[in-house]
Amino acid sequence: MPKAEQTRQYIVEKAAVLFNLKGFAGTSMEDILKATGLSKGGVYGNFQSKEEIALQAFDFAVELVSRKVNERTRVIDNTLDKLKAVVYFYKERILNPPVEGGCPIQNTAIDADDSNETLRRRVIEVLDEWQSRIANTIEKGKQRGEVRPDADACAFAMQFIGTLEGGIMLARLYKDIHYFDAMAQQLLRLIEELKP
Amino acid sequence: MPKAEQTRQYIVEKAAVLFNLKGFAGTSMEDILKATGLSKGGVYGNFQSKEEIALQAFDFAVELVSRKVNERTRVIDNTLDKLKAVVYFYKERILNPPVEGGCPIQNTAIDADDSNETLRRRVIEVLDEWQSRIANTIEKGKQRGEVRPDADACAFAMQFIGTLEGGIMLARLYKDIHYFDAMAQQLLRLIEELKP
Repeated sequence: MPKAEQTRQYIVEKAAVLFNLKGFAGTSMEDILKATGLSKGGVYGNFQSKEEIALQAFDFAVELVSRKVNERTRVIDNTLDKLKAVVYFYKERILNPPVEGGCPIQNTAIDADDSNETLRRRVIEVLDEWQSRIANTIEKGKQRGEVRPDADACAFAMQFIGTLEGGIMLARLYKDIHYFDAMAQQLLRLIEELKP
Repeated sequence: MPKAEQTRQYIVEKAAVLFNLKGFAGTSMEDILKATGLSKGGVYGNFQSKEEIALQAFDFAVELVSRKVNERTRVIDNTLDKLKAVVYFYKERILNPPVEGGCPIQNTAIDADDSNETLRRRVIEVLDEWQSRIANTIEKGKQRGEVRPDADACAFAMQFIGTLEGGIMLARLYKDIHYFDAMAQQLLRLIEELKP
């Protein structure tokens, strides 16, 4: 990796934590300078604006979480077991998340919905991709006879994501994983109901 | 209401919208001065700090939403119908909320979970109260024979709140109420399952 690319990546990684903890409006360029230890020239030489950093930091954070989830699920063969593994992943990692501050989709969604249209569009793209990935898993499960043929893959995906995010919000607010339990129970039931 | 109290209330109401839209870290005292049109002395003469304003603004926003929900539910007699009315209230108001910016509990929870312990504690108090209120409704419903005696009132309340908040997050991100539908369906099912 060339030196300039390394610096960009370093800034993105440091900024990802700040944005995930404090939000877009709550993170200043001064915060980024302080966290990276770089000069103004060092940061502005690599990025045009705080928004450009935020977009790349968001992508970085989402990819990191996604990779961690995949590490867990790719070794699992059965469709329903794969989905259950996602629930257990979050149960384990909500209070000890891959990127400090919790779920970057949730944090950025709440942060951007009223105040930053570019960032909001990017969160929607990522959520659309996530929904498609879950729906594809369901469709493959149908072909393999592991999911009932009349299951609504898209509705399931949205319920799965919404229920998960609701549980993440509660557990992170209380800093107590037990507040995720009632939601995990609901998720496992949604998964069980996919059975043929 | 004495003049000083009127000014405090005016500041709180204007600030509630700012905090709900932009978060605690994203709202500066300058924003509050601008929105109220008051001088520094006019604001600081009434409040010690931004945090003091934020706490009162949060309480004001929660009370306003709560009053709007109660207006809808108090005329309904049956326990399950009361709960369904809460779902329909949100379906109607997610994109046109009583306080601009959406659900103050959700916004403040995500905002404060990593960055402001006083505000986080206050959100927890409010969520505890909300959970108790739902659980009480369920217990009364049991006495009236409208809810099955073995229903877990506290678990239901947490699932209800978590599912609702997940749906609010999705619909507000997409600015499309259809993204609430899958979650509303799940809420109505949770309510139906309370039947004796």
